[in-house]
Amino acid sequence: MGEELMNSNNKQVILNNYVKGSVHESDMSLRNSTIRLKIPEYQDDAVLVKNLYLSCDPHLLDRMKKVEGHNADSCTPDSISAAATGDDGPIVGYGVSKVLESSHPDFKKDDLIWGITGWEEYSLIKDTSQSFKIQETNVPLSYYTGLLGMPGLTAYAGFFELCSPKKGETVFISAAFGAVGQLVGQLAKLFGCYVVGSAGSNDKVDLLKNKFGFDDAFNYKEEQDYDSALKRYFPDGINIYFENVGGKMLEAVLNNMRIHGRIVVCGMISQYGLEQHEGVHNLINLIKKRIRMQGFLVLDYYHLYPKFLEMVLPHIKDRKITYVENIAQGLESAPNALVGLFSGRNIGKQVVVVAHE
Amino acid sequence: MGEELMNSNNKQVILNNYVKGSVHESDMSLRNSTIRLKIPEYQDDAVLVKNLYLSCDPHLLDRMKKVEGHNADSCTPDSISAAATGDDGPIVGYGVSKVLESSHPDFKKDDLIWGITGWEEYSLIKDTSQSFKIQETNVPLSYYTGLLGMPGLTAYAGFFELCSPKKGETVFISAAFGAVGQLVGQLAKLFGCYVVGSAGSNDKVDLLKNKFGFDDAFNYKEEQDYDSALKRYFPDGINIYFENVGGKMLEAVLNNMRIHGRIVVCGMISQYGLEQHEGVHNLINLIKKRIRMQGFLVLDYYHLYPKFLEMVLPHIKDRKITYVENIAQGLESAPNALVGLFSGRNIGKQVVVVAHE
Repeated sequence: MGEELMNSNNKQVILNNYVKGSVHESDMSLRNSTIRLKIPEYQDDAVLVKNLYLSCDPHLLDRMKKVEGHNADSCTPDSISAAATGDDGPIVGYGVSKVLESSHPDFKKDDLIWGITGWEEYSLIKDTSQSFKIQETNVPLSYYTGLLGMPGLTAYAGFFELCSPKKGETVFISAAFGAVGQLVGQLAKLFGCYVVGSAGSNDKVDLLKNKFGFDDAFNYKEEQDYDSALKRYFPDGINIYFENVGGKMLEAVLNNMRIHGRIVVCGMISQYGLEQHEGVHNLINLIKKRIRMQGFLVLDYYHLYPKFLEMVLPHIKDRKITYVENIAQGLESAPNALVGLFSGRNIGKQVVVVAHE
Repeated sequence: MGEELMNSNNKQVILNNYVKGSVHESDMSLRNSTIRLKIPEYQDDAVLVKNLYLSCDPHLLDRMKKVEGHNADSCTPDSISAAATGDDGPIVGYGVSKVLESSHPDFKKDDLIWGITGWEEYSLIKDTSQSFKIQETNVPLSYYTGLLGMPGLTAYAGFFELCSPKKGETVFISAAFGAVGQLVGQLAKLFGCYVVGSAGSNDKVDLLKNKFGFDDAFNYKEEQDYDSALKRYFPDGINIYFENVGGKMLEAVLNNMRIHGRIVVCGMISQYGLEQHEGVHNLINLIKKRIRMQGFLVLDYYHLYPKFLEMVLPHIKDRKITYVENIAQGLESAPNALVGLFSGRNIGKQVVVVAHE
């Protein structure tokens, strides 16, 4: 193959500037670039991939913002954040890809993988520490951006490793129709908990109750007062709160927690678009009710991925666990799909198809 | 002894009304009442005591406020809070007392005990679940309101059970000169941590460094910006925060925590006097830094009391652990002593002497 044949057009989504407040489509651009479809000879342990699906996740917005202050160890890995701030590369996030070439012993041509990749048609992944080989292909491949990928493992690790659930306990999940929330609710039901979720539309509420088997659900946009809503659904209080939204909902939950309750902080999507996050005024409840509140990132739990698959794959096959995706077609649609996430426009996990295998 | 001889005058401190915001001396009154110095025949498992020392603790203010909302299980035991709201009884708190008579098999006449009692000269304690017999009297008896009582056990349980300390980690303690903070710092130093405390006067800062052996300390009242202060003392961030104050200090700490840090929430004294507590706007750090934040009440850890004594008594004897008290004379001085706690007027644990043995 001649040198000229190794070069390919490579459409990319790049960030124009650091985002302040909420994200807009105009913060991103589509760019035509060129990629050499060959791993450089000196580049060991890399994979060159064709991207198939990209994942729109709330944490992307956080990475698009300028990080102030010291404590470099406080954030997501530098190799990712640097790229996500538009440092001459595309936006970086989770996705599903097909390996075109590999200089890494764990991957070979035609492998399917999920993990950190670029918002572009082809990516050279130099750091494969967040790349996972897909073994089970008898499920929709896009599930590896959601149910079987980072959000799925997040739900599993968050619920089983951090919530310390007991059968019969009450569980509240905010943004329950999101990529993580859907699965947390189903895992909690399978485990034997009483599960209520909040979501932002009546359609979502209906699906939570009738498709995912939540015991109950409510549309937070129709509630004047979150505190009253929670008292209605949890007259005896909440044992476990799986936190995806932050702000006023967290305040209301703190007032409705039971003693020795656990709050697992997975996300705060209601806050990411604000210049200054809302204040939480009632943390005194942590003392009175002896609450444990714990933040986590899935990257500390990747070692559980095989155990997670072992549990969840059979449940998918016997249809005890299901999943709803919202699929946008084409890399061009990615900026719009990401922006829609923050208004809750998507019903289910937001995925972008870049190419079909 | 005739019936008339069994009656005694019994000075009491009562609450005039529920406290709103901060507490003032005028919220409390001294009252002369009468007590029959004899346990009623039908009253099993009670002790009648002469109170010797009373403890001024921050949580008392919280108990003096009207509790709104449902979730009765969220607060301190009803038997205590009811009394603390001035429900025709004296204020209720921790103290050291001498048993005059007992119908409880575990206590006998002349025993010295510490635990929940009334702000009065004599108390009939019907619920002895928070009464502990004092075995070691070769220390100042008043220590059982502080170093060897509830605050001491709070420090021990909070640090060893909840902070998950590792040798060499950095520990920050706010209100470090308070009844709990003094001991947390000394325990952390003995354990092998790097310890910095904040306090509200230069005298306290000096004592923290030179008497208690803290690695460093600062006067928060002289800091324009807590965030800069913390960066100065913890250039590489904080592993463990022992939270006694809340509000703006908590915000600054959250910005300076290291990943996988632990915040143990023992108190929020800066907030108790406010009508509405300050908002904490940066809880997103819990996620980014995977922080565990846990509130606790000592009543969940009473079973550790013997283990605590076993550790701390030898250290007191060989002077590796020391303690500073601020002693007010007479029940009359109790309201003023309590109010002073919230302006940080006291240097060290605030005790009120009711009577000498």
